[in-house]
Amino acid sequence: MEKSVSGNSGFTSSTEIVEAAERIAGYIHRTPVLTSEAIDNIAGCKLVFKCENFQKAGAFKMRGAANAILSLKEEERSKGVATHSSGNHAQAVALAAKMLGIPAFVVMPENSSRIKVNAVKGYGAHLSFCKPNLQAREEELKKVVEQTGAVFIPPYDDYRIIAGQATAAMELIEDFPGLDVIMAPVGGGGLLSGTALSARYFGKNISVVAGEPEGASDAYQSIRKGEIVPSINPVTIADGLLTSLGERNFPIIQKFVSDIWLAGDREILDAMIMVWERMKIVIEPSSAVPLAALLKNKKKLSGSKAGIIISGGNYDVGKLFGQ
Amino acid sequence: MEKSVSGNSGFTSSTEIVEAAERIAGYIHRTPVLTSEAIDNIAGCKLVFKCENFQKAGAFKMRGAANAILSLKEEERSKGVATHSSGNHAQAVALAAKMLGIPAFVVMPENSSRIKVNAVKGYGAHLSFCKPNLQAREEELKKVVEQTGAVFIPPYDDYRIIAGQATAAMELIEDFPGLDVIMAPVGGGGLLSGTALSARYFGKNISVVAGEPEGASDAYQSIRKGEIVPSINPVTIADGLLTSLGERNFPIIQKFVSDIWLAGDREILDAMIMVWERMKIVIEPSSAVPLAALLKNKKKLSGSKAGIIISGGNYDVGKLFGQ
Repeated sequence: MEKSVSGNSGFTSSTEIVEAAERIAGYIHRTPVLTSEAIDNIAGCKLVFKCENFQKAGAFKMRGAANAILSLKEEERSKGVATHSSGNHAQAVALAAKMLGIPAFVVMPENSSRIKVNAVKGYGAHLSFCKPNLQAREEELKKVVEQTGAVFIPPYDDYRIIAGQATAAMELIEDFPGLDVIMAPVGGGGLLSGTALSARYFGKNISVVAGEPEGASDAYQSIRKGEIVPSINPVTIADGLLTSLGERNFPIIQKFVSDIWLAGDREILDAMIMVWERMKIVIEPSSAVPLAALLKNKKKLSGSKAGIIISGGNYDVGKLFGQ
Repeated sequence: MEKSVSGNSGFTSSTEIVEAAERIAGYIHRTPVLTSEAIDNIAGCKLVFKCENFQKAGAFKMRGAANAILSLKEEERSKGVATHSSGNHAQAVALAAKMLGIPAFVVMPENSSRIKVNAVKGYGAHLSFCKPNLQAREEELKKVVEQTGAVFIPPYDDYRIIAGQATAAMELIEDFPGLDVIMAPVGGGGLLSGTALSARYFGKNISVVAGEPEGASDAYQSIRKGEIVPSINPVTIADGLLTSLGERNFPIIQKFVSDIWLAGDREILDAMIMVWERMKIVIEPSSAVPLAALLKNKKKLSGSKAGIIISGGNYDVGKLFGQ
């Protein structure tokens, strides 16, 4: 029985999310949900953390990438898949392709970090590099797709991707049905739109709030303006959240996300350190944005039960130690 | 039914370990066991990590401290407990005392790190400081015990402590019965002697191997010499493993530990970074010593199934980020 939230057939349906969960089950981890009394005491509410930093390839991106690639017919994907990304989506596409025994072609900006390039290489993907801007990435990708016949797997502006990312919140709600609010970070909006749909379909009066960096506040501005405001020259340590909102993601966020709270880089770093020190888990700066934003808005959540989606854990730890 | 491994009634018995597990159950976490395909591939064997970094107060020390304090009669502990420690044992005693509503008196060297002092303070312990040497610590502790009537809780040279620390390996063996070897770090020998006893009592042909820093190799030397060689001016980043072996720990280690493998600080740091980056968990340098030593001795364990006890996760992360 499909539960429909609106007449807008463009939204990913609950059935599509349930089917995505079944489709990707053998390709992802059902990640653990962790808690921390120490952080609860600081936040003044009860927090549960859905730990996608423990996901395959180190981030929730594996869910959407696996769902998109597995949704292709075998003949469609036989020539491989392609994407452009400097980060976790590239790793996810590379790993999902490796698991399926098909080639992956990844276009990365030439200034991508050593650790990210090595991870994508480690999964056996074919790499090509381009200048670090969106136009160069898209041109190089077009060339790769023409040469190889590979299928483009977009990072967030795609209903199969949204359905895949939605499975993280679906699992969280299954494990903790009584949540008042779920927070997720927002970059292109794949995770946030999926989270909002799962909260609506599978939860009971759960509001969804995004955390966004002050230095990349295009989603915040987009909601206020009522149209997508592009992300121009964003500056933040949360390097997974630099992109503009996707066209398919924005209307879902507009309709089903209650609020977007901002946090500055100092606050994001403090929240990240807090999680490393108190919870003993490694999360990347983008993953600390919801907690940072929550701590700035403590009063609004006082005494409530909040879920936070920890989006990923890919951090160049060696660099911290001078390696 | 008590299973006895020798006529030496001085060894902690299997019953004492089982009783310790029951006694401390409400005061500790049953910690998770994590795996990493990436690290398995590097090590050439199947590894399971018993994650005591997720233990209360951030280390296995909570097990022994809770068991020792709970083993006291109520009138014995009514005036409180006392210890000297610069590290995880101090936090464990402070937290266990807090949970029982009794005072804790902790003597710390005046050069202890800010984060460790704050953690002990955070658990409400009464702190006093002393010069950073064993004699000063013991003198100050004696004074505190005389003034307060508190009971001294030793860090490792104590059968109640050994029984408590043994419960970590007992849980690991319950969760993964087919292990060929278990590795643990060695400092004073509380964790290692407990691990060796649990492997003997509850396992089936599990050998126990210690990891020790090259710069604090007193246990390695002690085993070769057949008597306790004191740890004099140890120099290593594994700051939880600086002490000499305890008198009660040494004979157990002598009898039931198969080998001690050494690792240098460079290798310990590399192993620690590997765990942070690949497993996305924060562990302290002392916890990385067994993996570092294993990676130097890969050939000996090729294809086998090894458990590693990750002893703790108390690390000054803020300092890494210049705080």
